[in-house]
Amino acid sequence: MATKRQLRLNLFSHDIGHHESAWRLPESDPSATLKVEHYVNLARIAEAAKFDSVFFADSPSVFGDPRYRPVGRLEPTTLLGALAVSTERIGLIATASTSYSEPYDLARRFASLDHVSGGRVGWNVVTTAGDEAARNFGRDGQALHRVRYDRAAEFLDVVTKLWDSWEDDAPVADKRAGLFADPEKIHAIEHTEEHFSVAGALNVPRSPQAYPVLVQAGSSLDGRIFAGRYAEAVFTAQRSLAEGQAFYAELKRRAVEAGRRAEDVLVLPGICAFIGSTEAEAKARERDFTELIIPAYGLGQLSRFFETDLSGADLDGPLPKVPAEDDVEGHKSRSTLVAQLARREGLTVRELLGKLGGGRGHRTFAGTPEQVADTIEEWFTDGAADGFNVMPPALPSDLEAFTEHVVPELQRRGLFRTEYEGTTLREHYGLARPRNRFERELLAGAAS
Amino acid sequence: MATKRQLRLNLFSHDIGHHESAWRLPESDPSATLKVEHYVNLARIAEAAKFDSVFFADSPSVFGDPRYRPVGRLEPTTLLGALAVSTERIGLIATASTSYSEPYDLARRFASLDHVSGGRVGWNVVTTAGDEAARNFGRDGQALHRVRYDRAAEFLDVVTKLWDSWEDDAPVADKRAGLFADPEKIHAIEHTEEHFSVAGALNVPRSPQAYPVLVQAGSSLDGRIFAGRYAEAVFTAQRSLAEGQAFYAELKRRAVEAGRRAEDVLVLPGICAFIGSTEAEAKARERDFTELIIPAYGLGQLSRFFETDLSGADLDGPLPKVPAEDDVEGHKSRSTLVAQLARREGLTVRELLGKLGGGRGHRTFAGTPEQVADTIEEWFTDGAADGFNVMPPALPSDLEAFTEHVVPELQRRGLFRTEYEGTTLREHYGLARPRNRFERELLAGAAS
Repeated sequence: MATKRQLRLNLFSHDIGHHESAWRLPESDPSATLKVEHYVNLARIAEAAKFDSVFFADSPSVFGDPRYRPVGRLEPTTLLGALAVSTERIGLIATASTSYSEPYDLARRFASLDHVSGGRVGWNVVTTAGDEAARNFGRDGQALHRVRYDRAAEFLDVVTKLWDSWEDDAPVADKRAGLFADPEKIHAIEHTEEHFSVAGALNVPRSPQAYPVLVQAGSSLDGRIFAGRYAEAVFTAQRSLAEGQAFYAELKRRAVEAGRRAEDVLVLPGICAFIGSTEAEAKARERDFTELIIPAYGLGQLSRFFETDLSGADLDGPLPKVPAEDDVEGHKSRSTLVAQLARREGLTVRELLGKLGGGRGHRTFAGTPEQVADTIEEWFTDGAADGFNVMPPALPSDLEAFTEHVVPELQRRGLFRTEYEGTTLREHYGLARPRNRFERELLAGAAS
Repeated sequence: MATKRQLRLNLFSHDIGHHESAWRLPESDPSATLKVEHYVNLARIAEAAKFDSVFFADSPSVFGDPRYRPVGRLEPTTLLGALAVSTERIGLIATASTSYSEPYDLARRFASLDHVSGGRVGWNVVTTAGDEAARNFGRDGQALHRVRYDRAAEFLDVVTKLWDSWEDDAPVADKRAGLFADPEKIHAIEHTEEHFSVAGALNVPRSPQAYPVLVQAGSSLDGRIFAGRYAEAVFTAQRSLAEGQAFYAELKRRAVEAGRRAEDVLVLPGICAFIGSTEAEAKARERDFTELIIPAYGLGQLSRFFETDLSGADLDGPLPKVPAEDDVEGHKSRSTLVAQLARREGLTVRELLGKLGGGRGHRTFAGTPEQVADTIEEWFTDGAADGFNVMPPALPSDLEAFTEHVVPELQRRGLFRTEYEGTTLREHYGLARPRNRFERELLAGAAS
């Protein structure tokens, strides 16, 4: 029997849940954000449900007002080390910044994690918006959006060269001859361009996946161009089927224009699902969260998105005048999405904060397991998604609701695996292992 | 019963063993350097024997000739994430560089690891010698020794401020009131000095140990001054009791001169022990390694230490003329130690390479378990050591010999614990948890 096209499911593991009120629920442990057991538990729940991967966002700064939400957080690459030996099959994706990292260091950490996990690692490539992070790394404020993406492109060039710097068969390990590795197959990359100067080679031999799966999540024009060139999976925030279809078609087109195949990039929109055994129960669950919203927190977030002080905004009036995307240097795509949402639906500020509370602009949905499966299937079959970035409002409870009730429904419909077929994240996602550019050069040289 | 002063034992986990021939032994797996199971196994063996800690050295470059020794290696902070959830009590120490890291990033990684491990982490602070590493981080060559240590001192100042930036009781987590943390107890550090500009606060609340245990291993004058000011444990390479006593006395004196107590810094000399049930058997074990030495590898190491090409040196002649420590910018103290060893004992180059093969200048010793325990006890009671940095020639086999035969002998003599008393590395080492400078300032302000 030929296998039906299969959904990809990624768990976006975010603190105690994606809803900003999650930590205030009776069932929640607000100190869980610093406990490794919390993340091990989430990864194992997702793995038991055969999810492709679990993902951790990140920014190297105190992000958000510490009065209103847990802001302390474990650094994701060290956390992935712990999860790699606490799980067996699920992919593990960490965010790391091209603006505030050194390529040699980051290449090592991801190559090491790929070895430790047996080839299950992904890297969410971010340029890191916001002046707060910049000021922790010797700068007065963030670089211009375009400059950040220029640096990101060169950063990708350097790290992929480093991941190619050992050919797969460079280690020989001939004890008798006393030859550990063939030096002809270890390449100093000697990269010297605008942003970076890196001699190489990497001090980690080529890893099971060769490169971690490259993930991207920025949806600005620069972000979409970057994703078309480099990303193998895109986490995106699309709120309607039509928007999802347009984004999906554009990303696939950009990949093809960049000389890749459409299937070389997976598009995974976010979904923050409130699940109940009836629709009324699901909506009641959503209301439980909304009632715990602290308006001052959401106003702080809006101020950050728009780079404008909105802390005094009238909660029962419309969204005040805010800068257009062209005038925003940080969260370009997110600010546009939020402004459009407020204008189109004629929301008061309070209503807007309620809509954003669940997924910070990502799509929220309240319904029965069948209704959640219906909308997932619709987006999947109607050209808006290759899978979903699952963003439970509270963790672990809403993840458990998803894996216990939605996943079996998706499996019944033949849309989602019941067993892992592969062992690496690339195999889960159906992505090829990258060929080695240095081997290719040798081959080209031999053929000429 | 009052407890006798207790030895501290640290396992220096280095690839497949400290001897450069270890990978060529019949029992060795040369690919183990990339397998997390290898390190988990070593840490668990050391933990079962109640070792205080396990330690990983590091340099962000291909270090050594890949023909003659496994040079690929896992990045230590990500590896520590894996070990933190694979062990329960043993301390976990990783090397990281002040020359090629950003303080905000490194402070986060160690604070995260301290949370994940429940307070068992240490940081071996290195300035990283060698041009190879510099050329992976945008520079033409290493900075001057003194400049590297100046940067290291400011780096320590920044990261300890960041580790203090959350007072212990800053998180409140009052669900009902909707107050997660008290912003008055979270401090922007606003550090702006010569090398770094870091706004803060850290985005990780204060960890179980507050700071990782600060370890130092450079024995140059700059290194000893630095250790006197900052180090809580010093890994050192002393080959004779007299040298060990002089170093020990100097370090304690420097600590006191820096306003600390002598017991605030532990001195742990390295010992690379070949163990046999008779002395002859131990010496035969050492010869097995020596016979597998590849001279070209050792000549490469000597060339690196002395920053001089010695690859053509006559193996059966004396050590050629080499630069004095003042003219060496990289491994200052190690080059002096090696030159003195060669001159004092009148060694040929081949003999010198044999002496260095086991511990790269660290002390090697071949004997019975009782003889190993004797020399450990002598150094411990005669003012040369607070404990030892155990460097097994091959791993895991020579670690097993040490834990099965030497540790019980030390326990019989009442010199080493039979059970862990504490849960953190600071408790194992008998070191205080640092007070918070921001709390101290508040207290001082309240008293004035």
